[in-house]
Amino acid sequence: MSKFPPVKAVKLTDEMSVDELITELSASGVFGAGKLAKAVQIYTDMLKDNSKVFLGFSGAMVPSGMKKIVCDMISDGMIDVLVSTGANITHDLIEAFGGSHLRDIPYESDEDLREKKIDRILDAFVEDTSFGLLETNIQRILTDIFAKQATDGTLIISTSELIDEIGSYITFNDSIVRVAHENKVPIIVPAYADSILGLQTWLFGQRNRLIIDPMADLTLIQDIFVEADSAGTIFIGGGVPKNYIFQSSLMSSKNFTRAIQLTMDRPEPGGLSGATLSEAISWGKVDFKAGMVTVVSDATITFPMLVAAVRARKSQWQK
Amino acid sequence: MSKFPPVKAVKLTDEMSVDELITELSASGVFGAGKLAKAVQIYTDMLKDNSKVFLGFSGAMVPSGMKKIVCDMISDGMIDVLVSTGANITHDLIEAFGGSHLRDIPYESDEDLREKKIDRILDAFVEDTSFGLLETNIQRILTDIFAKQATDGTLIISTSELIDEIGSYITFNDSIVRVAHENKVPIIVPAYADSILGLQTWLFGQRNRLIIDPMADLTLIQDIFVEADSAGTIFIGGGVPKNYIFQSSLMSSKNFTRAIQLTMDRPEPGGLSGATLSEAISWGKVDFKAGMVTVVSDATITFPMLVAAVRARKSQWQK
Amino acid sequence: MSKFPPVKAVKLTDEMSVDELITELSASGVFGAGKLAKAVQIYTDMLKDNSKVFLGFSGAMVPSGMKKIVCDMISDGMIDVLVSTGANITHDLIEAFGGSHLRDIPYESDEDLREKKIDRILDAFVEDTSFGLLETNIQRILTDIFAKQATDGTLIISTSELIDEIGSYITFNDSIVRVAHENKVPIIVPAYADSILGLQTWLFGQRNRLIIDPMADLTLIQDIFVEADSAGTIFIGGGVPKNYIFQSSLMSSKNFTRAIQLTMDRPEPGGLSGATLSEAISWGKVDFKAGMVTVVSDATITFPMLVAAVRARKSQWQK
Amino acid sequence: MSKFPPVKAVKLTDEMSVDELITELSASGVFGAGKLAKAVQIYTDMLKDNSKVFLGFSGAMVPSGMKKIVCDMISDGMIDVLVSTGANITHDLIEAFGGSHLRDIPYESDEDLREKKIDRILDAFVEDTSFGLLETNIQRILTDIFAKQATDGTLIISTSELIDEIGSYITFNDSIVRVAHENKVPIIVPAYADSILGLQTWLFGQRNRLIIDPMADLTLIQDIFVEADSAGTIFIGGGVPKNYIFQSSLMSSKNFTRAIQLTMDRPEPGGLSGATLSEAISWGKVDFKAGMVTVVSDATITFPMLVAAVRARKSQWQK
Repeated sequence: MSKFPPVKAVKLTDEMSVDELITELSASGVFGAGKLAKAVQIYTDMLKDNSKVFLGFSGAMVPSGMKKIVCDMISDGMIDVLVSTGANITHDLIEAFGGSHLRDIPYESDEDLREKKIDRILDAFVEDTSFGLLETNIQRILTDIFAKQATDGTLIISTSELIDEIGSYITFNDSIVRVAHENKVPIIVPAYADSILGLQTWLFGQRNRLIIDPMADLTLIQDIFVEADSAGTIFIGGGVPKNYIFQSSLMSSKNFTRAIQLTMDRPEPGGLSGATLSEAISWGKVDFKAGMVTVVSDATITFPMLVAAVRARKSQWQK
Repeated sequence: MSKFPPVKAVKLTDEMSVDELITELSASGVFGAGKLAKAVQIYTDMLKDNSKVFLGFSGAMVPSGMKKIVCDMISDGMIDVLVSTGANITHDLIEAFGGSHLRDIPYESDEDLREKKIDRILDAFVEDTSFGLLETNIQRILTDIFAKQATDGTLIISTSELIDEIGSYITFNDSIVRVAHENKVPIIVPAYADSILGLQTWLFGQRNRLIIDPMADLTLIQDIFVEADSAGTIFIGGGVPKNYIFQSSLMSSKNFTRAIQLTMDRPEPGGLSGATLSEAISWGKVDFKAGMVTVVSDATITFPMLVAAVRARKSQWQK
Repeated sequence: MSKFPPVKAVKLTDEMSVDELITELSASGVFGAGKLAKAVQIYTDMLKDNSKVFLGFSGAMVPSGMKKIVCDMISDGMIDVLVSTGANITHDLIEAFGGSHLRDIPYESDEDLREKKIDRILDAFVEDTSFGLLETNIQRILTDIFAKQATDGTLIISTSELIDEIGSYITFNDSIVRVAHENKVPIIVPAYADSILGLQTWLFGQRNRLIIDPMADLTLIQDIFVEADSAGTIFIGGGVPKNYIFQSSLMSSKNFTRAIQLTMDRPEPGGLSGATLSEAISWGKVDFKAGMVTVVSDATITFPMLVAAVRARKSQWQK
Repeated sequence: MSKFPPVKAVKLTDEMSVDELITELSASGVFGAGKLAKAVQIYTDMLKDNSKVFLGFSGAMVPSGMKKIVCDMISDGMIDVLVSTGANITHDLIEAFGGSHLRDIPYESDEDLREKKIDRILDAFVEDTSFGLLETNIQRILTDIFAKQATDGTLIISTSELIDEIGSYITFNDSIVRVAHENKVPIIVPAYADSILGLQTWLFGQRNRLIIDPMADLTLIQDIFVEADSAGTIFIGGGVPKNYIFQSSLMSSKNFTRAIQLTMDRPEPGGLSGATLSEAISWGKVDFKAGMVTVVSDATITFPMLVAAVRARKSQWQK
């Protein structure tokens, strides 16, 4: 007998729960299976410790149907800060205003789709009319916000404040922007200009002195970080949200103590998106003893599994 | 309202089963989530149709604890032919003979592991002593098989026959080789020489005229294919098993009607491992109307999910 | 003889130039080899047509030594707009202020590097002292810019204007920021707050009313796009720069007519970084007849090859 | 000044040679650029040391036009053993017998190609008639070989012997099989049955007792390894050739002293194809002080660059 633990064989049963499957994968303990099980453990530990949870939200997660998971995480106290691409917020608003994402649309070519005024995101689709809904509604809301808040004809506002304000106008239940507003969870979009929401805001700004102030968001996220007893982060994809969340720790002597990364990006080309979490240790962004794990697998599969299993465990210890 | 179906938001519950999660992913219907749900549907259809199921078994699936899933698939009639790398069979035999795969071994470098006589497979490990167990047992078994079967001092044998014979000597329950023997499911290892099992057979062959005949396996797999009313295939990874299974259809006018591929290999470099399943249509290997899907994600996560969900569905319709 | 062109075998010679190698790869015409050769053709066509060239600059390209290539492209009129991550501009400034990126540093762990105050980017390194140089210099420069430009104690400035101003202070020759300033090529950093440069600007802003206005950059890039007779784009990596460049065409009836993408990101997870260029056609961002190609390979290899070969061709037709 | 070497900026010139570009990339020294430059150094060192060079040849390299590079490497003494997939040898023979690989074929779908009897490999194509040429010629050649070599109506032959015999029948100059025969460089195809060449041999074997003996190849490769003063290996892709070459060192106390891997496969899923070379150290396959490097990039780009640069250096020192 070796003194080291064995890889146990994964045993499936006919009616097993997601949580039971994760328990089996944790008995294997290696490869992607072991890493996903470890991610469940780390996220569970974050919640048990009452760590502040920062979610980095990249990739077309809203168009692929992942928004309700995030809504429920927010309303159940499983996320404290959301740092998102502009696209995910844009697409959340599209659905909030009655638009939708579609699938199973037969097409011959992307030129064919263009003629039909259908925009493609891999195998999800948005009709141009959905962007029309976004335009009508967001221009109306921006007009109202500006009327209420502008001083001397000028409104300088951070992305988190503006998105929070927009959230107060939404009546649709399953909107991340609305649920975040209701639960006072800030949504920061560091590259706000880089999205259709940004373009709409620019359009509004052509006749109104509305200035987006991304530096004010930096104050917010650093304040949250500094005030937290401990902080953990979950990255879906990489991109700006990952770097932005990590750098919120740079001005402080504290560090993130736990980190989970669900990504398909590679480390070898050297970009930050695919970088190992360990690399962040050298920058002083993550604690020496942090629980951290990267699961290299499609996040539209691993994110639901992660959250479903953590929900099961949370419902146990909260009984 | 669009005439096309919407991407529905995935809804998680605290106690959900793997099957329920797959149902939610199928409501999304796009990206990896939709593809995994489609794979569950396709495999379910294979079983409902009584299709012959060919499993291509690449990657270090046995060292990562996936063998019991395959054992149970075989004993429950969910696989009809297994085409494997030599490594997976080698590692199955290591466990069958009392060796084991280990995890959580701290090490400084691979040189450090070498000195400790520990072999590394990503984050799984095998001690050299486990290979010693393999050598002792396989040499004993080959001696016995040769004594019984050689004619005029010569034994010419296919890989499937030899592995089946080896299976008859195994008493350990959770061995793919044993369970396949008991259930008369052939295991073909086209690159038999490319494995430690192959090296051990070569060693035995230095003093005994034992000749491995890979052409006889080609006869076997083509016969199974031709006799099947319909055939479907599941590829874990790519490699030799994928190409080998596909080419079993080339000499016949029939085609595989369904195919599932769980892989991380890319199509862009042009190799067969990462090739789209659609490419196989041009070669006449897959039917025009085949249900087929590639899930680009870690197979140690998607394979257990796929099989767990199909087991749940199978248990329903078999009630 | 087929009526279709054959894949010709690539022939190497002992002294061949990069341009000759690309010519050989174009004779192959398929796989990555053919795609890289096609990228050379497309970029050559952009320059021959006097198209405006938009370069999307993601990934740690400056830390890996790729900055001089960009400097020379700017001074030789091969780029008209640069859209960059904040990190690449930060690291360009670090070198401009006398800091450097290092390699071949032996280390035991990232914790070890942290103790030595060395930050790691894959296998490149930056000492904390280099960030100290950045801080000293950038605070001095921001102070000076603010003193000159602030009105009533307030300065609202776009990222491109601010970076252009910073460029006027740099005396080091091989700096992208300086060379862009000298050649009046705008540098836009849409996620400016998401970088050490952004943090330094935030720090300065704690005691000075300096407001970064990303919406003003949107006006600039759309104006350049609308005024161009034709426009092409080259993406190194994906991220914000890719989406941002593409969306500059959305408010206009024009389109990009050519696009090149050098990336390792995958399309399958559905994010914009790895999306096919064809997908952009459905959004109306790229012209129907655009020459476009994605080369899936490490950009620190393909970018130098692309530019070296285009330089050779440019020097020919300009003789 | 740091005591560690700086990453130097890559400088391009208008007429630079591939070798000069590699020298510039080596001055960067990091990321893919540095790794490719290191690969050039390692292969140069193999040749200077008169190491035996084992080439693992996976992926559709012949269909993508890479065969002439290999032919010239063989005739110029740059390879000593070739371990290949069956597919690459099959496609080399197709061209040797007058067939060809095509490109730029417009098609609507793979079903469309099937109807036109055109087989697709990513964006390369083979017409069914080319496989017809293979069949006619290989059946004729096998008949002749069998007639000459069979004893008592039986021929038991290794893959390397059979391919060498086939090579003696080829009159076309640019064939790997012919050039290897002429230069007495063995070609081993461990998964011989897994290819159209294998199927053709199986077809011949239906009426003739021709038995492929893969164990005899194991004797050959181990003998070459043991007799070599030193040995290095280059892997294009992973697959069976990589594992097979590595395991040739397992029965001996020697190790490979240098290894180069050009691949797009990922390490994270745990398969051998994407495994780091370092992992092989733990198995005792590679020497502790081996020069080794993995370049994660498309081999149809990096393989020509590697060989072109090494040819330039070789031509210098051989003057």
